[in-house]
Amino acid sequence: MKYLDEHFLLQSVSARRLYHDFAAALPIIEYHSHLPPMLIAGDHRFANMSEIWLGGDHYKWRSMRAAGIPERLITGDASEWDKFQAWAEVVPQTLRNPLYHWTHLELRRPLGIDDLLFGPETAPEVWKRGNAMLKRPDFSCRGILRQMNVQTVCTTDDPADALEYHEQIAADRDFEIRVLPTFRPDRALNIPRMLSDGSTDREECVRIYLNYIELLEQTTDIAIEDFADLVEVLRLRHHYFHEHGCRLSDHGFGRFEFAENWTESEAARIFRELRSGKPISFGEEMLLRSGLMFEIGRMNAEKGWTMQLHLGALRNNRTRLFLELGPDCGCDSMGDGSSAFALSRFLDSLDRIDRLPKTILYNLNPSDNEMLATMIGNFQDGVVPGKIQYGSGWWFLDQKEGMERQLNALSNQGLLSRFVGMLTDSRSFLSFTRHEYFRRILCNLLGTEMEQGLLPNDFELVGSLVRDVCYNNAKNYFGFDGE
Amino acid sequence: MKYLDEHFLLQSVSARRLYHDFAAALPIIEYHSHLPPMLIAGDHRFANMSEIWLGGDHYKWRSMRAAGIPERLITGDASEWDKFQAWAEVVPQTLRNPLYHWTHLELRRPLGIDDLLFGPETAPEVWKRGNAMLKRPDFSCRGILRQMNVQTVCTTDDPADALEYHEQIAADRDFEIRVLPTFRPDRALNIPRMLSDGSTDREECVRIYLNYIELLEQTTDIAIEDFADLVEVLRLRHHYFHEHGCRLSDHGFGRFEFAENWTESEAARIFRELRSGKPISFGEEMLLRSGLMFEIGRMNAEKGWTMQLHLGALRNNRTRLFLELGPDCGCDSMGDGSSAFALSRFLDSLDRIDRLPKTILYNLNPSDNEMLATMIGNFQDGVVPGKIQYGSGWWFLDQKEGMERQLNALSNQGLLSRFVGMLTDSRSFLSFTRHEYFRRILCNLLGTEMEQGLLPNDFELVGSLVRDVCYNNAKNYFGFDGE
Amino acid sequence: MKYLDEHFLLQSVSARRLYHDFAAALPIIEYHSHLPPMLIAGDHRFANMSEIWLGGDHYKWRSMRAAGIPERLITGDASEWDKFQAWAEVVPQTLRNPLYHWTHLELRRPLGIDDLLFGPETAPEVWKRGNAMLKRPDFSCRGILRQMNVQTVCTTDDPADALEYHEQIAADRDFEIRVLPTFRPDRALNIPRMLSDGSTDREECVRIYLNYIELLEQTTDIAIEDFADLVEVLRLRHHYFHEHGCRLSDHGFGRFEFAENWTESEAARIFRELRSGKPISFGEEMLLRSGLMFEIGRMNAEKGWTMQLHLGALRNNRTRLFLELGPDCGCDSMGDGSSAFALSRFLDSLDRIDRLPKTILYNLNPSDNEMLATMIGNFQDGVVPGKIQYGSGWWFLDQKEGMERQLNALSNQGLLSRFVGMLTDSRSFLSFTRHEYFRRILCNLLGTEMEQGLLPNDFELVGSLVRDVCYNNAKNYFGFDGE
Repeated sequence: MKYLDEHFLLQSVSARRLYHDFAAALPIIEYHSHLPPMLIAGDHRFANMSEIWLGGDHYKWRSMRAAGIPERLITGDASEWDKFQAWAEVVPQTLRNPLYHWTHLELRRPLGIDDLLFGPETAPEVWKRGNAMLKRPDFSCRGILRQMNVQTVCTTDDPADALEYHEQIAADRDFEIRVLPTFRPDRALNIPRMLSDGSTDREECVRIYLNYIELLEQTTDIAIEDFADLVEVLRLRHHYFHEHGCRLSDHGFGRFEFAENWTESEAARIFRELRSGKPISFGEEMLLRSGLMFEIGRMNAEKGWTMQLHLGALRNNRTRLFLELGPDCGCDSMGDGSSAFALSRFLDSLDRIDRLPKTILYNLNPSDNEMLATMIGNFQDGVVPGKIQYGSGWWFLDQKEGMERQLNALSNQGLLSRFVGMLTDSRSFLSFTRHEYFRRILCNLLGTEMEQGLLPNDFELVGSLVRDVCYNNAKNYFGFDGE
Repeated sequence: MKYLDEHFLLQSVSARRLYHDFAAALPIIEYHSHLPPMLIAGDHRFANMSEIWLGGDHYKWRSMRAAGIPERLITGDASEWDKFQAWAEVVPQTLRNPLYHWTHLELRRPLGIDDLLFGPETAPEVWKRGNAMLKRPDFSCRGILRQMNVQTVCTTDDPADALEYHEQIAADRDFEIRVLPTFRPDRALNIPRMLSDGSTDREECVRIYLNYIELLEQTTDIAIEDFADLVEVLRLRHHYFHEHGCRLSDHGFGRFEFAENWTESEAARIFRELRSGKPISFGEEMLLRSGLMFEIGRMNAEKGWTMQLHLGALRNNRTRLFLELGPDCGCDSMGDGSSAFALSRFLDSLDRIDRLPKTILYNLNPSDNEMLATMIGNFQDGVVPGKIQYGSGWWFLDQKEGMERQLNALSNQGLLSRFVGMLTDSRSFLSFTRHEYFRRILCNLLGTEMEQGLLPNDFELVGSLVRDVCYNNAKNYFGFDGE
Repeated sequence: MKYLDEHFLLQSVSARRLYHDFAAALPIIEYHSHLPPMLIAGDHRFANMSEIWLGGDHYKWRSMRAAGIPERLITGDASEWDKFQAWAEVVPQTLRNPLYHWTHLELRRPLGIDDLLFGPETAPEVWKRGNAMLKRPDFSCRGILRQMNVQTVCTTDDPADALEYHEQIAADRDFEIRVLPTFRPDRALNIPRMLSDGSTDREECVRIYLNYIELLEQTTDIAIEDFADLVEVLRLRHHYFHEHGCRLSDHGFGRFEFAENWTESEAARIFRELRSGKPISFGEEMLLRSGLMFEIGRMNAEKGWTMQLHLGALRNNRTRLFLELGPDCGCDSMGDGSSAFALSRFLDSLDRIDRLPKTILYNLNPSDNEMLATMIGNFQDGVVPGKIQYGSGWWFLDQKEGMERQLNALSNQGLLSRFVGMLTDSRSFLSFTRHEYFRRILCNLLGTEMEQGLLPNDFELVGSLVRDVCYNNAKNYFGFDGE
């Protein structure tokens, strides 16, 4: 087979048929992304290939650093062209890394450059042709979303966000793609551990947290004196998000912890101390967070939302870079350690009061794959099919092997047929080819097993699973308005 | 290849030859099951397909809940037919889950239904044909065991069990299959954590534990006042089991813990407190359990038994379901966390006094595979070949990928050729096709590697490994009477 | 394909071309071994196949114990022939274990025995032919290194070592292979936990440690009264090693621990207590070790060395065997538990002062693969390409599956193209075929993916990656003199 031809990743005739006949034409429901709604509202256009490809993309930054590219050419003040050229030097060094595939998939679609391999020799041509494409009307942010057949996009938003860009987008009758917010209250649940000057002064960290609490007060015009006030304000914002079409919450954790024995009075005592500016212990912070997660879980259940838990990141490991560039600059990695018991206690505590929402569990360290894939089975309650989901390969697992291992773990331990499928988790408007990547990988697994006699050679049976996982399940599961 | 034809799972000519010529005809030594001896003693007949397939089968229950089937149709008061039909709706949704394979394997053997895929359309026919089969004489419990070529079955039994059904079976000259007990003293080692009404009152939990101690007293007519008494009573029951042909003990753990520094006097002090009804701490409970496991390990060594350690389950996660249905209802999952050091200390403490029995280590979380596969190598002592075993893929790992990963970890780290092979761990009389499943998977790995030049193309060499793993090793290792 | 023919492990035409055209002829840079420099200095000759194959080889010993061979025939006083014959009986039982491949690879190269399978029937012939070979001039230690095309060998050495054998070798103008020491200061960082008589008396353990400190004093003629003295003495030895061509340090850990908050004054206080013979706590020992690792890391950075961290062994598990045979006798296994956070803190603490050296992280438990493969990405600083490396499959992972998983984890998370490649980590002069093994596996992965369209079908592109990983990267990365 030729590299990246129309049968890319499809190693059998049945796989090809599954992909081309059942998967390829389906629209995309992008239920978890970090796309900036402002760019969609303003229908932003990218000045050049460097902006659209390298801006904010810490996956690429990491690989450039590993290749020995100096920071000036990565996040520094070098020209856009110099950065682009540096990236071109690195790409041939990324062989077997997903970046090599993604890069060429993105060149092919939507940029239409499918006749060359990217590298230092072809960089000038790609720069020229790519930049020309970006000038075309269908390469604005909205144009790209349309080209990629996106139907719905969920962004990731802070509870204090006014959602004005979502409102603008929704108000525009000429734009048919649904762009919805996601409720991500991390800043209400976590006190920072380090300040932007490298200090770890706990009192100062508390002050930063309280600044955020005050922002919530301003947003809602409600004083947050107590734990109950904070819950109430979050509930108001939750409702506000709901009215803007939001149907998911999202929460990031390292090792998952949960104090099953938290009580409202204890949480209230701790929050009052915190509110008065006193540093609280890490254990108290965890108890407080347990209470808030419990309350948010309950809100989600009551509104029919889906709760996403992203587990296992170890963030900001390289302090020098964090101080220079802030978070999300490419110095995060996988954590390890035990989460199963705490996760069980959290989900059970909501289930005991019949307020466990639809939930998606994502892990970063693949040694947790099977643990999570069995955890979801504990809490399926027979009411919503696939109520508790084992989420798609995420971040460091967003590649062929990671996706296959996620699909296999889910298949072995649960119902693949009920899976809500892929998401990009991306800040990039070019990243939608990852849905294609996922669909090809899924069809390859299934088609190959059909030919091996491991699955019935029944295209209606297997093809309808493909359609469900690539589109129908997400459509039915999340319950976005109008669906 | 056609789905589930005679070459099912056998992806090469050599694999087929290995399976059909070396493995298929071998009898089954089922050295670990949860079959109810009462049903064998009474040669029970199953009223219908629902009873034999769905009764007590929490694997299927989990998948039904995940598919959105209400509990009434799973464990509730719906009719047998309605439950069967609900299951039929779920089966096509289990594509790529082992249930899909098992279901069709079981239909094929022993039920003889090999011309259809199970699903809602074929459910009435399967119901009719299956029920008709179940009426035949060779479909009683004993009949099925004979059809499946079972030679020995080990059940799982409490030390307080009188073993009357085992005696009945052994006394029946017309029944040639050996049915032996296994010594599983979990109730003597663990104080319950939750009562059937959801209470976690520790004193009440201790009372439940002491009820069990009293049951042991009644069984043996010996007062259990002290740790030494408890050990003595367990030794008497161990001996009683031995006289009934028992040659294995079995023990379930979450994360494995062991207090290497336990002393008899400390254990005695703790047990006296417990005996007087006082709640003891979790740490004290662990120390007591350490002492009991040490003593039982020693008993096993002295009688030439095999000790099985099943590690890593996180049980009864969904409290509401546990309170409604009790344990083993489908709300268990994989735990995580560190066990290696404690396990090393336990095995070493027995080895230091030259009383380490033959031992099989099983793990539930596959991220422990290699850890266990190397742990066994520490304690091989050159006396019994394959003395310490890395056990077969178990429970959540009892599927193609789980078996392959267990076989690969064992092969890479130890001697596959000395492996005692497969077991069903099942409550179901239809589950013996899992031995066939295992044998096909084993032959597939080996045959494929022969064709790839990774193994010598020598059928006598590789075929005799197949025979050993599928039958001879278990026959030689366990030392059941008459073998 | 035939077992172990010229295309061994190469499952596609492209794989064969990559191996034969790009990899096979490259010299070997063995940057991490445990070869005894004395044997090279004296150009030792092996008396027979038993000495060269079984002496000190705990991999083989473990497999012999697992096969039920008594210790007398493994490490006891049986004759060399009897041991050889016992090993011959075990080899056919090692099917699918890497020993089966290694054994036949080593017979083929350099011993030239490629026409038989090793086993009890062929043992006499292999004994005869192998022993005859060992008598030839090109089968001395140096002769074997030459035959295997070794260019550089790094041994593993204690800081107190005078390196007299390295000096002898370097002084010999007729011997062109570079043999360099590696700085392994484990004895300066760890207080023993058990004495050779099985006692764990802490004071006695401290005495053993202090004996070593005194050895360092004698070696350098400097009194070690304080933490700063110990650091200074280590720095002197570090420099001494540097002058002997050493460019790597090496450090073994179980679970990695690091006290980020260690201070020099606290380390000084602890060391003074220790120096006075007082037992210190495990926590204090860890803090002291943290300080020493920090200082050694800094020395490495300042000299341009590479720091190797080997993580995750659980050692000397079977006490009876340890007391009889000492360490490294085949009773070690994989540990488990969490290391990510501590490792991040260690690397970051060096990076914060801009003294993070080139570093290679190796793991023993494969469930840590992806964690480590992402950890390295945090600390790539754009100065040295591939500065932080994820090390080759090691010890229990030094087999086809282990290597493939390491290569895949590295490919998915970092830059395979910058990988410094394989090492043997071995005490055996016959083990260099593992480089061939690795190269074949690498080429197989790449070639197969070229044919599947997952990589461009561009032999210059992919072949130059092969050459880099097999040789050029190591050559450029380590900076041995004269390169």
